[in-house]
Amino acid sequence: MSSKYPEYEDPMAHPRYTGLATFFRAPHTESFAEADIGIVGVPFDGGTTNRPGARHGPREVRNQSSLLRPYNQANGLAPFNLCKVFDVGDAWVTEAFDLEKALGEIQSFFARLHSAGVIPLAVGGDHSITLPILRAIAKEKPLGLVHFDAHCDTGDDYLGSRFHHGAPFRRAVEEGLLDPKRCIQIGIRGATVLPKLWQFSYDAGMRVITMDELQSLGVVGVIREIGNVVGNEPAYVSFDVDGLDPAFAPGTGTPEVGGFTTWEAQTMIRGLQGLNLVGGDVVEVSPPFDPTGVTALTGAAMLFELLCVLADARFGTSG
Amino acid sequence: MSSKYPEYEDPMAHPRYTGLATFFRAPHTESFAEADIGIVGVPFDGGTTNRPGARHGPREVRNQSSLLRPYNQANGLAPFNLCKVFDVGDAWVTEAFDLEKALGEIQSFFARLHSAGVIPLAVGGDHSITLPILRAIAKEKPLGLVHFDAHCDTGDDYLGSRFHHGAPFRRAVEEGLLDPKRCIQIGIRGATVLPKLWQFSYDAGMRVITMDELQSLGVVGVIREIGNVVGNEPAYVSFDVDGLDPAFAPGTGTPEVGGFTTWEAQTMIRGLQGLNLVGGDVVEVSPPFDPTGVTALTGAAMLFELLCVLADARFGTSG
Amino acid sequence: MSSKYPEYEDPMAHPRYTGLATFFRAPHTESFAEADIGIVGVPFDGGTTNRPGARHGPREVRNQSSLLRPYNQANGLAPFNLCKVFDVGDAWVTEAFDLEKALGEIQSFFARLHSAGVIPLAVGGDHSITLPILRAIAKEKPLGLVHFDAHCDTGDDYLGSRFHHGAPFRRAVEEGLLDPKRCIQIGIRGATVLPKLWQFSYDAGMRVITMDELQSLGVVGVIREIGNVVGNEPAYVSFDVDGLDPAFAPGTGTPEVGGFTTWEAQTMIRGLQGLNLVGGDVVEVSPPFDPTGVTALTGAAMLFELLCVLADARFGTSG
Amino acid sequence: MSSKYPEYEDPMAHPRYTGLATFFRAPHTESFAEADIGIVGVPFDGGTTNRPGARHGPREVRNQSSLLRPYNQANGLAPFNLCKVFDVGDAWVTEAFDLEKALGEIQSFFARLHSAGVIPLAVGGDHSITLPILRAIAKEKPLGLVHFDAHCDTGDDYLGSRFHHGAPFRRAVEEGLLDPKRCIQIGIRGATVLPKLWQFSYDAGMRVITMDELQSLGVVGVIREIGNVVGNEPAYVSFDVDGLDPAFAPGTGTPEVGGFTTWEAQTMIRGLQGLNLVGGDVVEVSPPFDPTGVTALTGAAMLFELLCVLADARFGTSG
Amino acid sequence: MSSKYPEYEDPMAHPRYTGLATFFRAPHTESFAEADIGIVGVPFDGGTTNRPGARHGPREVRNQSSLLRPYNQANGLAPFNLCKVFDVGDAWVTEAFDLEKALGEIQSFFARLHSAGVIPLAVGGDHSITLPILRAIAKEKPLGLVHFDAHCDTGDDYLGSRFHHGAPFRRAVEEGLLDPKRCIQIGIRGATVLPKLWQFSYDAGMRVITMDELQSLGVVGVIREIGNVVGNEPAYVSFDVDGLDPAFAPGTGTPEVGGFTTWEAQTMIRGLQGLNLVGGDVVEVSPPFDPTGVTALTGAAMLFELLCVLADARFGTSG
Amino acid sequence: MSSKYPEYEDPMAHPRYTGLATFFRAPHTESFAEADIGIVGVPFDGGTTNRPGARHGPREVRNQSSLLRPYNQANGLAPFNLCKVFDVGDAWVTEAFDLEKALGEIQSFFARLHSAGVIPLAVGGDHSITLPILRAIAKEKPLGLVHFDAHCDTGDDYLGSRFHHGAPFRRAVEEGLLDPKRCIQIGIRGATVLPKLWQFSYDAGMRVITMDELQSLGVVGVIREIGNVVGNEPAYVSFDVDGLDPAFAPGTGTPEVGGFTTWEAQTMIRGLQGLNLVGGDVVEVSPPFDPTGVTALTGAAMLFELLCVLADARFGTSG
Repeated sequence: MSSKYPEYEDPMAHPRYTGLATFFRAPHTESFAEADIGIVGVPFDGGTTNRPGARHGPREVRNQSSLLRPYNQANGLAPFNLCKVFDVGDAWVTEAFDLEKALGEIQSFFARLHSAGVIPLAVGGDHSITLPILRAIAKEKPLGLVHFDAHCDTGDDYLGSRFHHGAPFRRAVEEGLLDPKRCIQIGIRGATVLPKLWQFSYDAGMRVITMDELQSLGVVGVIREIGNVVGNEPAYVSFDVDGLDPAFAPGTGTPEVGGFTTWEAQTMIRGLQGLNLVGGDVVEVSPPFDPTGVTALTGAAMLFELLCVLADARFGTSG
Repeated sequence: MSSKYPEYEDPMAHPRYTGLATFFRAPHTESFAEADIGIVGVPFDGGTTNRPGARHGPREVRNQSSLLRPYNQANGLAPFNLCKVFDVGDAWVTEAFDLEKALGEIQSFFARLHSAGVIPLAVGGDHSITLPILRAIAKEKPLGLVHFDAHCDTGDDYLGSRFHHGAPFRRAVEEGLLDPKRCIQIGIRGATVLPKLWQFSYDAGMRVITMDELQSLGVVGVIREIGNVVGNEPAYVSFDVDGLDPAFAPGTGTPEVGGFTTWEAQTMIRGLQGLNLVGGDVVEVSPPFDPTGVTALTGAAMLFELLCVLADARFGTSG
Repeated sequence: MSSKYPEYEDPMAHPRYTGLATFFRAPHTESFAEADIGIVGVPFDGGTTNRPGARHGPREVRNQSSLLRPYNQANGLAPFNLCKVFDVGDAWVTEAFDLEKALGEIQSFFARLHSAGVIPLAVGGDHSITLPILRAIAKEKPLGLVHFDAHCDTGDDYLGSRFHHGAPFRRAVEEGLLDPKRCIQIGIRGATVLPKLWQFSYDAGMRVITMDELQSLGVVGVIREIGNVVGNEPAYVSFDVDGLDPAFAPGTGTPEVGGFTTWEAQTMIRGLQGLNLVGGDVVEVSPPFDPTGVTALTGAAMLFELLCVLADARFGTSG
Repeated sequence: MSSKYPEYEDPMAHPRYTGLATFFRAPHTESFAEADIGIVGVPFDGGTTNRPGARHGPREVRNQSSLLRPYNQANGLAPFNLCKVFDVGDAWVTEAFDLEKALGEIQSFFARLHSAGVIPLAVGGDHSITLPILRAIAKEKPLGLVHFDAHCDTGDDYLGSRFHHGAPFRRAVEEGLLDPKRCIQIGIRGATVLPKLWQFSYDAGMRVITMDELQSLGVVGVIREIGNVVGNEPAYVSFDVDGLDPAFAPGTGTPEVGGFTTWEAQTMIRGLQGLNLVGGDVVEVSPPFDPTGVTALTGAAMLFELLCVLADARFGTSG
Repeated sequence: MSSKYPEYEDPMAHPRYTGLATFFRAPHTESFAEADIGIVGVPFDGGTTNRPGARHGPREVRNQSSLLRPYNQANGLAPFNLCKVFDVGDAWVTEAFDLEKALGEIQSFFARLHSAGVIPLAVGGDHSITLPILRAIAKEKPLGLVHFDAHCDTGDDYLGSRFHHGAPFRRAVEEGLLDPKRCIQIGIRGATVLPKLWQFSYDAGMRVITMDELQSLGVVGVIREIGNVVGNEPAYVSFDVDGLDPAFAPGTGTPEVGGFTTWEAQTMIRGLQGLNLVGGDVVEVSPPFDPTGVTALTGAAMLFELLCVLADARFGTSG
Repeated sequence: MSSKYPEYEDPMAHPRYTGLATFFRAPHTESFAEADIGIVGVPFDGGTTNRPGARHGPREVRNQSSLLRPYNQANGLAPFNLCKVFDVGDAWVTEAFDLEKALGEIQSFFARLHSAGVIPLAVGGDHSITLPILRAIAKEKPLGLVHFDAHCDTGDDYLGSRFHHGAPFRRAVEEGLLDPKRCIQIGIRGATVLPKLWQFSYDAGMRVITMDELQSLGVVGVIREIGNVVGNEPAYVSFDVDGLDPAFAPGTGTPEVGGFTTWEAQTMIRGLQGLNLVGGDVVEVSPPFDPTGVTALTGAAMLFELLCVLADARFGTSG
């Protein structure tokens, strides 16, 4: 495998616990012109309904991502050889106490990134951040969605807000940012506050794969179903770490027992190779509830799998 | 789904981290007359042979149970619509230093509850508490048993006691509280202190499903076997969180690696729908060994599944 | 010592780890008519500028307060004998995503409590909650203030908000709720974001005792100074646990090394006996950053000392 | 300084994290004949009224004691040069579920040790273990007592038991094992369950130094007072780690804020040099509540100071 | 089952939390003459490339192994009945700052053990320790290898060293200590620092089973493959706990998500029964990263399974 | 106070939990030409004799230092106004397995920094790193030393090494890098492995202030003594966090109970104002032993105090 950008190839010159923590020890820049893919922290948890702390997620995912390495043994992808990957810093907000203004600031950041032609890969923060990202990158045409989560996050207003972390995908469908027929939600489970809390997903035509169906289909079956639903048009991937069982990701705001494993998650993400991916995110890592750091490490590992298929989709032979 | 008791339907008026912690934020009462099902804390760990702390279990299960919600997506059950569920407080003991007296006090509490016609759902405490519960509710006729655990808990005297947490089911069979032919023990594993520590189970005719057999049968096979063993007569369910692998439930007194997952546990409990259940318990959550609270959360999730099938058995269409 | 209310005198009938967790295992009521002093949880951290989590504070302070006991050895006070102390539940908010609306809801709760003649003792939540409490109880006339904290909390707008947790006492002075000449702030230290961040305190005439001055004066000198500043008119006490050194209270949102000890804090609060106290709070216990629970225990211990002097001021011989 | 027993002088041949964990990496023996001083674990917490776990104390104190070294810089004492110090293992019990029988077993162990002429230094375990030790060694004549603790532990029956960990010194005085006029209790504080919970201490003539008095006297004043009370007759030292502030010893069963510091504790114990000490203990280290191990380390450090003054009293120039 | 050595059969006379911590509470000896199998701690982590702490592994595995019991329910093996098993202490090093000298010291220890005819079962320490063990026991003839791990550990020089923990099996093959055709490596996964980091394994003819292949084959298929590769000649087993998923073993130096479960691990090790095993190790338990102790417990459980098949191979009916 | 470099004055534009973690959120550069003071991470713990992990110190001190702010309330110093302060990255090593080579690499880094005229402020790493720093900056003339620590670190060879973390100051004196008559060591305590482990300090004429003497002198007395010893010639400051009591700094490799407080430490460092300081370090923060992060926060706070007096000495009015 030859590299277009040899200068980014050897993060192992340094021992892994050294240096400033950037995502995967990729170079940091605030100049979007340099980047093909920009990994962005979104340290915001103002949409959280229960346990806060995801604002500290980007820091810890950066920190734990130092343990990762550039070559993906499982599928042979080497994202740092395929394109220029940068840590472009944080989409931080100045109006942190006002949910809608904060989401507006996040949207502006991703709009600038999008205008510069940089493919976004975001690290939350809570799941409310996905809406402004979609607003920034899906204006032209609704996107498809591959969504890993315990919850459909297509709820309605709650505690006086339309934009909390349990509703982004409802709003995105309503705003025409997602094509519900090309959306698939995987890992859904847990009790709900209303009899049919996620009815919007079903009514809108989104494909919902519960944990029970995931167990029946197996990961191979799920991968096939993803392909069927999403097709060849552009699609976004959103990975909420609470889709994983709390044994694998205890440090999150809304844990639900009975989830999938890290191997299943890795395999399903690898199964996205060949899709027309245009961006993605990993959300809901909450370090205050993650004393061992294992959730941040797991989040980083999922981010790496996303980076691989995203780089391949846009800059690789699959692209 | 219509509700008989609409006033208990909306625990979500409050954010989930607020208010006094009761089981599932159900109303608290000390009057048994009001309740159909009474969830009871049993903060006692005087039968523990190794790592204590389960006395703190009810508090933390109450606390973490606030994260749960009333509608069970997987099977459509809504226990708070089916019947009046109350947190009836703790079966606390005053003679905490004397194991037999303490068990007697616990028995008295459950006997009062039973006399009042309240279906008991208990949260331990260590596994020694199941014996006095059975003494209170199985006097009329031996019950069947569905028992999830790493250990058969049919051992004999140990460290001078007949009533420690490794022996309750032996004593219950000996006292005629359980019909061994209708007892099934699931998840059994781990090395033992004697060559045939659980021989009593086999000799008495209890059905023992080891982890290896569980892996062979799959959860569907186990569910079928439960039905075969327990039949249609009244049965009790006892869920020891150490049946789960320590990855899912590290905070327990006698952890055994190689256990089942939370998804398997949820699915097996849901498979009890249709049985003639008369009570149940979740035991051995030990908060001092559970720094992330994930074991208490998991215990609460198992308690919710038990509540669903118990409410359905007694007050639902299966009943 | 005779008791007016013998029925509340013996919380020790139960072992301390049992039962629903209320503040000091005091009886819970939602009827304000019953109470002389109402202890209130305020599970809100929407004013936090950095590390969130204080929304979980009331739950854990309730939990750890079970370790406390009714008789204060140091000063002989027995608050449960002096008056009717109730846990009156939480001043929870429904508009949790909107800081100003949330503060309005909190104000309403305390206004109702105040109208009912109940003396408030609050447990935060972040320090932004003190402003709505003062709005509720200090409408008639400005109060004096005894304020233990690492920070003066008299800052100005920050991140677009006037009501974050670093500004309540500035707003309270501006709104005429506090008489700055009768305000004393104790334990102030730490670096600041602006050269004279707390200049408002000095300009308004509040008495600021830094940690260095506290070390010079000693606790006896500080107690004398408190008396000089506050005088005999009505005063409020606000205890931010970050006034303590992080060794004693690590679980807080804005820790500052170099603080006072728990013994110093207890002694200073006991030194408030004889003042005309009308309410108080303990704020900024953040359980996600408090894995051992020691901060919540310490917060509960400070709450107990406040309860003692408050009960004495209003219902005791000092009153 | 010459050594009588050079073979025990160099524990530093091994790196400190290696080898089986014995107290101070002293040699282990089950033969009492070899030892001058025997350090004994007493892994029993059956007398605990609240948070259990002290049964795991000896293990963790052994583990953390590896960090200690043989020469006491502060007072020049080198206990391993003065006499033969052994880890004589645990006074473990076989009747763990029966408090009185368990205390009887502990007494038998110490009686055998005493008969063999070995000076006992015990590591609990909860404070109930001190009574059987005194029964074993104080039969001939009542001893004096230097007692560091937050609590006098001279309470009466509680939860049906006379022998819980809040009563050992009352029972010891009643049984004639201690001469109350020669007993001093240091560090007393915290609220109480009864108005005069520790009245027995005062009535019996024990000298009680509260934290407030300790702060007034200073450690030098306390040391002088110890000497005045205890005199030259044989005395026992009991160190409950909850005498320390929870900042220094969070991992204990009954933490009380406002305690003394480790430096104060070390200095007060060093001040016992010259007394006629005949044994001692360190109790109430509870590892499940001590995630960083700092309490076990502190317990080990206090044990080392006790060992120094005990070795000096019996085998040194002070002896 | 009759026992050759009844005196070692009953470790349950003591409660499990008591006594000095030895491996499985087996007797400790420094005399190799007494032992058939010697369990050895190797507290060395000087070969670690990233997160240190495995030097503390033997202590904690000893501690947690107290929870284990002598009879293996799954396969009926009772190692303490088959042969004399001793904790022979630690292969500690005196030249801890010099990697090569340290490995030399470790080699000397195992050479002495080997000369004495004792079968070694080691507990690391990082994976660099396996090389000196093989140097000590495989001089006569290359061994086969069953290697459970996330990494092949057949890398080349790194950070200036040939002997770090990512290279021992390359060196062992190069030195003729292992027959690569009889080596199998199971659980391999994770991204790599070089495109073909483990190419040596493939080039040398070692059989590499990645996690993906393990999932395809199932544990039964893997067991069959192990038999095919290793055959009947002498073989060594090396179990790196990072082969397990971090949910099961978070406390390790190089965690890789997507690993196997404890049940799969136990079953695969049990599948080694019948092989001609001559020694083994469990490595990379790192207590500072293991706050709940679950990794040490899991390491101990794996060690027990190894002990069972090793005892059976050498002293049992399979032998 | 006017600022020479206004562009560095407002780190508060960003919320404090956002962005890449640099020391105090100062700008990062790898160009030494830009900096007046360079803060350097030294992620190396190869000189540790006991508990490793300080290699992770710089990362966590950077992380926690985000909580700090630019203006020092206590002494009015504002280092970012006085000079250009940069995070110049890590002095990482490539020969991590060879202690002497690693120290050589560290020395080279600091020599380049020194040649560029940048004042060094280092963050360890273990205490072995101070020797190569002194070799880099004290070649011209021996320096004075202000050394805060529990240990004199003037030991001799240990475990085969002359350069472990217990010996740097002996080597520095021997190599003529320090003038022992101008060296003061503060906070010394703890038992020792040899009767007179620190005799070198006394023999060489270094001034040793034990904890007992510190308590007698008080911090004002210590400050006076520092001035007397160090005088007006150039001096270096080395702050080992184990000088603090473990209550304030549990996460360190060689904790010793009985240390000084954070307030005492801050006050003593502030007392260095007016000395001719030329560099400094904070060492021995070990994150794996610091689950709450309080030690890293404390280390960052001490680093800030050092930065203030160092900036003042070289670029302020004291300079």
